[in-house]
Parts: sequence; structure tokens; C-alpha cells
Amino acid sequence: MRPADDRVAAEEPLQLSLDGRALSVVMRTPGNDLELALGLLWAERVITRRDQVVKVLMSAEAGESEAGVELDTSVIESNQVDVHLRDGGRRPERSFMASSACGVCGATTVDDLALDFSVLPPGLKVRATTLPGLADKLREGQAVFDTTGGLHAAGLFTSDGEILLLREDIGRHNAVDKIVGRMLLDGTLPGARRVLAVSGRAGYEVVQKAVAAGIPMLVAVGAPSSLAVATALRFNLTLVGFLKRDRFNIYSAPDRVN
Amino acid sequence: MRPADDRVAAEEPLQLSLDGRALSVVMRTPGNDLELALGLLWAERVITRRDQVVKVLMSAEAGESEAGVELDTSVIESNQVDVHLRDGGRRPERSFMASSACGVCGATTVDDLALDFSVLPPGLKVRATTLPGLADKLREGQAVFDTTGGLHAAGLFTSDGEILLLREDIGRHNAVDKIVGRMLLDGTLPGARRVLAVSGRAGYEVVQKAVAAGIPMLVAVGAPSSLAVATALRFNLTLVGFLKRDRFNIYSAPDRVN
Repeated sequence: MRPADDRVAAEEPLQLSLDGRALSVVMRTPGNDLELALGLLWAERVITRRDQVVKVLMSAEAGESEAGVELDTSVIESNQVDVHLRDGGRRPERSFMASSACGVCGATTVDDLALDFSVLPPGLKVRATTLPGLADKLREGQAVFDTTGGLHAAGLFTSDGEILLLREDIGRHNAVDKIVGRMLLDGTLPGARRVLAVSGRAGYEVVQKAVAAGIPMLVAVGAPSSLAVATALRFNLTLVGFLKRDRFNIYSAPDRVN
Repeated sequence: MRPADDRVAAEEPLQLSLDGRALSVVMRTPGNDLELALGLLWAERVITRRDQVVKVLMSAEAGESEAGVELDTSVIESNQVDVHLRDGGRRPERSFMASSACGVCGATTVDDLALDFSVLPPGLKVRATTLPGLADKLREGQAVFDTTGGLHAAGLFTSDGEILLLREDIGRHNAVDKIVGRMLLDGTLPGARRVLAVSGRAGYEVVQKAVAAGIPMLVAVGAPSSLAVATALRFNLTLVGFLKRDRFNIYSAPDRVN
């Protein structure tokens, strides 16, 4: 054994507040905190329109640029985001919560898992030969992964496989929330002509977030779960798993791949 | 493209109640639900002694054996566990919550992350040559992983590398909770002479669960996070990451490896 330096992926808690009241703590890799907060609130349907967001309080050192919303960085401590909504928002009755890899967090009964999202429209078509390249582009785009081995990536792609957004986080759900939060800020939700790709597995929550963002195709390098497949079938999401260089599996709505 | 059958890892929500009141929903792979519930309550310090558990209501088809506590399987629907405690327990003020991979869930401010666990004692010694074999034993022991590729494993080992318990789940935190729940039922907490090994990454929550169980060494096949390392240092947990056949990294308390 010998002593050595090793870079590890950063993980810190982020306190998310709504109108000044603490809502939850998210374990995340610092950076793009505004996107993370808004993406999470979107997935939970607390925010359903961009113009509901009146103001966001967050620390100056978070250094968010291109916010597209009014930021007040004068009053709040680090590792906190406080989102103020026009009408007070639909504050979740349940204290929802996300960790590094948590998305349904805070549902207090099984019934709360009921979803009222829209079924995803047809229209998007992606060539089967385009899909394997998405995993390569995720890896190429990851600035940090190679040095720490500890970050998940999510990427937003066009139907031709062009990468539009890449986000990384210690939590795979957070990387997706950051993508969706960016789309909200950019006014590009729902993403009916987009493909979402993730470096890890496709569990229920990742599928739910894609459905909530109106993105009709989710491509995962890893394995899907049974509930992920069931949810994809219910909302007509095209769910692709085990994406490798020469093959992949389609679990639902295969008509969008040709 | 051709149609094919594919087995996917089962993921279903489990409603956890305390004394008849809904506490949280856990996304998990069905099986060992009693262990999961008790392990989660232990990590959250709702339960601190086995004899606090008076009775557990759960569905008959969960088929728990060797419970070691009074089980009532006559009244409750499937995918539910209702734990009744002698003194009503220390019901968390926060509505804590776990998903497939959630452990700090429900903390509503950063301050709630403060931990009051004990610093882990010295005494355990593990040979460096024993560690690489733990990953092999996890893989060999996984009955389901090979067919679905979607399950995480956690294993409890002696200091000589003998495997005592193996649990699998779609959520890596759940696999650890199931181990700790089994230890609670078996009366073997704290696990001061044990090594916990996990097939995935070592984030903050996995470290916290090992510390809560009094297990002084955590070995992860994947990467640790910064907060995992910081927590390991604080509680003198030996944290091993990137466990491969011929090497591994020790991030804290290396004196237990010789």
C-alpha cells in the first residue's frame, strides 16, 4: 500500500426552499443548482409554467449564468436555493425529498405515485443507427467522469443524435433534473422532438421525469426496472436500455425507432 | 430489430407505516420487506433496540420467514409494512422518505443531516489480500443479477472474507438496509467485527448506514463521493473504493487493513 491523491466526485447537500419555507434537501454535485431546483419542482408538478417563477434567492458563489429569471444573490447562504412563485405554487402536501438518486421522494402513500401526465405524442423518429452513438457522445462530453469515476451523465439530443445539453451529477436523477431545469429556463419544454440519454440505469423516477418533460424517448446505458417499463408503456414513452456499441433493447413504443 | 423476451429487475413501491400512520414510500425490489423496513428505521434512528418492535403488520404473500418478531399477516394489503413500536418510537419530525436509492430522504434542512452516531472502534483487522475476493463473492452470490443486470448487491463479511449475508435490490441503499434489518432481527448489531461490501458506489448515505450499524469497514466496487469520505473520516470508518481484482483505494482509517 502507498499513499496517493485521488479525486472524488463532489457531493454536498442543497437545501431547497419554496417561498422561504424549507421543502427538502437534495444530495448533489454542486453546480447548476438553479437548474436542479427548477427541474425537480417541474417533475413534482409544483411548477407547470416558466412565468410562475418570480424570483430565486441563491448564493452568489453558485455562479449561475444565463438564468433567465430574477436572481437575488445578496441574502442567502451557500448550498441553498429558495424559489419564489407568483401564486405561491402548488406546494406539495407531502414533504417531498430527493437525495443523490431520489425522485418519487416524499410520497407518503402508494396512491401518491399516481401520475396525471399526458400520453406522449407520436411524431419523433430516430434511426436505429443513431442510438449507439449517443452513449459515446455522453462519455466524450463528460468533463469530470474520467478523473473521479463517480458522476452520472444525462444528455439531451436531437433526433439526429446531435447533443444539445449535457449535465453531470453524483445522482443520476439530479443530472436529469438539471437538463429539465435548463429546458424550463430556455423555454423549450415540452421536448417533443428530443431524446434523453442517461449513463446509468432507467428506474421509475428517470422515466417519470422524461414523461413530465414531454420527451418521448429515453435511452439508458444500463438496465431498466419493471416499473420503469410499465410507466413507459402507460405513457407511450420509447424506452431503450442496455445501449451498447452494437446493440440495444427497446422495451416500449418501438415505432419511434426505424 | 427483432422482438425478444427480456427479464428486468422488479421495482415496486413499498408503503412503510409506523404505528398505523403512513411514513414513507420506498421504491424497492420486493422481498425481504421486513428487513428493509427495520433497516431503514434503524438508519433513521427511529429504532435503537430490537425489543422496541412489538408487532409488524405485513401481507402474507411477502412470505417473510425467520422474522423473530410478531407478524400479523391477516389484515394488510400487499406492498405495505406497518411497524408497531413499544413506546411509539421516536417518530421522525420530518417525513423521511426513501426511493430506490435514497437515504437522507426527508431531511428538511441541512442541519438535519447532523449525525450523532458513535465513532467506530478500532480492533477489526482485515488482510489486504482478502479484499479483492469480496467483489467476486458478491457477484457469485447474486442469483438475479446475471439475468436482469439491474440489481445492486450488498454483502456482510467476516474479517476473513467469509460471506454471512447477501441482499439484492434495485436500490443500492435498500440492499444495505436489508442487511442491517437482518442483523437487527438476528441480534447482531452493532457489527463491530464485520465488513460491509457493496456492488455500486459509496455515497454519503451508504456510509451513514454502515456507521449507524456500527460496521467499521465499507468496501465499494465503485467510486466514493466527497461527502462519503468526509463522513468516513469523521466516524473513523475504513472506506475502500474502486475494488478491483488487483487493487483498491483506501480513503480513510487505513490502519484496519494490513
